Amino acid sequence: MAGQEQIQIALLGLGVIGSGVARTLLEKGPAYAEQLGFRLNLRHVLERDLYKADGVPVDRRLVTDDARVALGDEAVDIVIEVLGGERPAYDFIKEALLSGRYVVTANKEVMAKHGLELLTLAQEHGVDILFEASVGSGTPIIGPLRRDLSANEITSIRAIINGTTNYILTRMSKEGLDFQEALKQAQALGYAEADPTNDVEGFDAAYKVAILASLAFHTHVQPDDVYREGITSLNARDFRYAHDLGYAIKLLAVARTGEDGVDVRVHPAFVPKEELLASVDGVLNAVQVEGDLLGRVLFQGPGAGPLPTASAILADVMDAAYSVAAAKAGRRGDRPPWRAGRPLPIKPIAELTTRYYLRMEVADQPGVLGQIARCFGDNGVSIASVIQKESDEAGQTAELVIMTHVAREESVQKTIKEAGKLAVVSRIGNLLRVES
Amino acid sequence: MAGQEQIQIALLGLGVIGSGVARTLLEKGPAYAEQLGFRLNLRHVLERDLYKADGVPVDRRLVTDDARVALGDEAVDIVIEVLGGERPAYDFIKEALLSGRYVVTANKEVMAKHGLELLTLAQEHGVDILFEASVGSGTPIIGPLRRDLSANEITSIRAIINGTTNYILTRMSKEGLDFQEALKQAQALGYAEADPTNDVEGFDAAYKVAILASLAFHTHVQPDDVYREGITSLNARDFRYAHDLGYAIKLLAVARTGEDGVDVRVHPAFVPKEELLASVDGVLNAVQVEGDLLGRVLFQGPGAGPLPTASAILADVMDAAYSVAAAKAGRRGDRPPWRAGRPLPIKPIAELTTRYYLRMEVADQPGVLGQIARCFGDNGVSIASVIQKESDEAGQTAELVIMTHVAREESVQKTIKEAGKLAVVSRIGNLLRVES
Repeated sequence: MAGQEQIQIALLGLGVIGSGVARTLLEKGPAYAEQLGFRLNLRHVLERDLYKADGVPVDRRLVTDDARVALGDEAVDIVIEVLGGERPAYDFIKEALLSGRYVVTANKEVMAKHGLELLTLAQEHGVDILFEASVGSGTPIIGPLRRDLSANEITSIRAIINGTTNYILTRMSKEGLDFQEALKQAQALGYAEADPTNDVEGFDAAYKVAILASLAFHTHVQPDDVYREGITSLNARDFRYAHDLGYAIKLLAVARTGEDGVDVRVHPAFVPKEELLASVDGVLNAVQVEGDLLGRVLFQGPGAGPLPTASAILADVMDAAYSVAAAKAGRRGDRPPWRAGRPLPIKPIAELTTRYYLRMEVADQPGVLGQIARCFGDNGVSIASVIQKESDEAGQTAELVIMTHVAREESVQKTIKEAGKLAVVSRIGNLLRVES
Repeated sequence: MAGQEQIQIALLGLGVIGSGVARTLLEKGPAYAEQLGFRLNLRHVLERDLYKADGVPVDRRLVTDDARVALGDEAVDIVIEVLGGERPAYDFIKEALLSGRYVVTANKEVMAKHGLELLTLAQEHGVDILFEASVGSGTPIIGPLRRDLSANEITSIRAIINGTTNYILTRMSKEGLDFQEALKQAQALGYAEADPTNDVEGFDAAYKVAILASLAFHTHVQPDDVYREGITSLNARDFRYAHDLGYAIKLLAVARTGEDGVDVRVHPAFVPKEELLASVDGVLNAVQVEGDLLGRVLFQGPGAGPLPTASAILADVMDAAYSVAAAKAGRRGDRPPWRAGRPLPIKPIAELTTRYYLRMEVADQPGVLGQIARCFGDNGVSIASVIQKESDEAGQTAELVIMTHVAREESVQKTIKEAGKLAVVSRIGNLLRVES
């Protein structure tokens, strides 16, 4: 890679998210370089607590507690901000944009409060601020709203965008726990903080829905504009009634636009069980967007965690890096095409291993199952369950439904062929693979 | 808009999709211009059957049946290809790229067979070919794979990407229909073609999964590499057994990568009912992607239809147009920021109208419900259902659960306040909004 073009990165913050980003950059750097055609080089890491670097595979010489070192280096192309909180993150981002650097941030508070100003600033300085990680961690939603759905007038967003509360509500729903018990479990598992106010009172979700509503409706919704209710008053009985009435209870973030203005709110809500949103459980996030052309589209995935967040941050970094590299080379900054020259072998279906469902018609007489089972066993296909059903008295046949354990397709096909030749088997019905 | 910069578009094809694109461009042109800062101008429409233009609000003078007119005009910046089929679409796309035009296409067959070649060609000529509409119509999946998930090593894709077959399988599952009956219904509703081979034998899904696998695994999977089985042999009994065993049957497109190569296939499969994919019914599409950083993420939305397809095509057009305009102005081609200067009024929560769930503790004595119901009625809040539960004999109280019809938040809050003052009401419990 010597001599190859490099894009220089300053990482602000080496907490849980920052460490995940640093570690991923190190481990996957060569793969990214192959994909992009140039290298991403971590040049500075800003961290007040210098001991934090000890557990992270980062060259200690890159780590500084002086923001001027990280932000003042003219060689830096991209600044990644993962400090969290409003200050000093906001000031650092602003400084980076003013000096013509691309910024990638996971900061929902800064983007909710100052997003419009920062995006405008970025444009004025010929760069961009990318913030996919600020909502739904690695689950793509900012990118789709800014690009893929841009031909639509977005009319509504309904989202589960706080993993902590969704985990708590899921435990309350499935196990009949009260709020305090479920909260304790979430804290024990690291899903909730010691002071859970930010999550359980809906502040976190309010920041996020302010960002989504602003992007979707081309306006600037401030966090204070969001009507907000938390989940602390819910109790186990509400979940029982909801269940009986055919609903799930979710902390929903809702944004709608209509003739009378923008309706943006975060509160626990009844969601009809037949809707996909009602089935989004645990720490998962989901965002449903409705547009005039598209109808409804749903994005669902992890809503937290260092690696999913690194996924979003590094996709944004690659996007920005490609723009920087293109500009340096005097090219347009479109995305690279799918990488050529990597022919991979195609695995034949015969080598598939999975579980199988097989339906067959057999003679309705004693000993049949034994013969068929032997045929399966001889080919190394292990039967998980057998259902014998719907015997047809006129034809003196019965229907046999077999589910196998994990087996090799080739063996299953051989089994069927041999079974088909048995005198007691009148017809082989469908063979279906199980995909889970 | 006079004097404003224009991006010139040639539209190849004025069938169902082409008409949707033309109509949308016309209707939403001013909104797009506001968003982009320049106009998208439809300059040529290529259509062999000149009568097709009659039903579409397109200036007849733009319509030509001569490809040389549409492709030979040097003013054209972007070519939209919605002819479908391999030829002559492939030749037109190639010609457009060779002459330095951006291409936006919905053509799964061309992209599956020639995608790698066309993307390379585009890059060599400093442009791009965009094809979000080729898989899942308006549901974003190509964009996310090319950009938002780019930091991941993608390990698997499981997708429902053919709306026709998913509709048929849904009817078979819910109504116990056999394949032929369900197919007839799909044909009557326009969801299946007179010759349904392309859909029901899995060819359409195979093209699409070849595209997804190629992008995800950075290789080129040809349609012929895809193992393929259709849905024609399924019958009602398979669905009953699947149901009893806890599965749904879906025509799944699967792509996995592992040490022994790429496993790409389309066939009906058992999907465990607790997975979201199992609940994707009717003409909806869904794509689940698994990456090493991200874990699993799911994209779900409409899989067909002129407007959802126009949504994808026009988002790609806007993306390309922004690159073209940026290059003309000597700027980088990043996406425009969220549009400033559109302050929208925030609707107060008091003006919300929805259905409500209310739980309260009341005295366990006759006439209580009447008093409470009167209080609701006086405020114009209509009660949809009442459940009285769990009377507490020691405290002589009962719990009342009320679901309202759609009502105004302000009225509901007033109702609760007044009800709280009634001697028979000992405690107002939770009030939750219904969001559906």
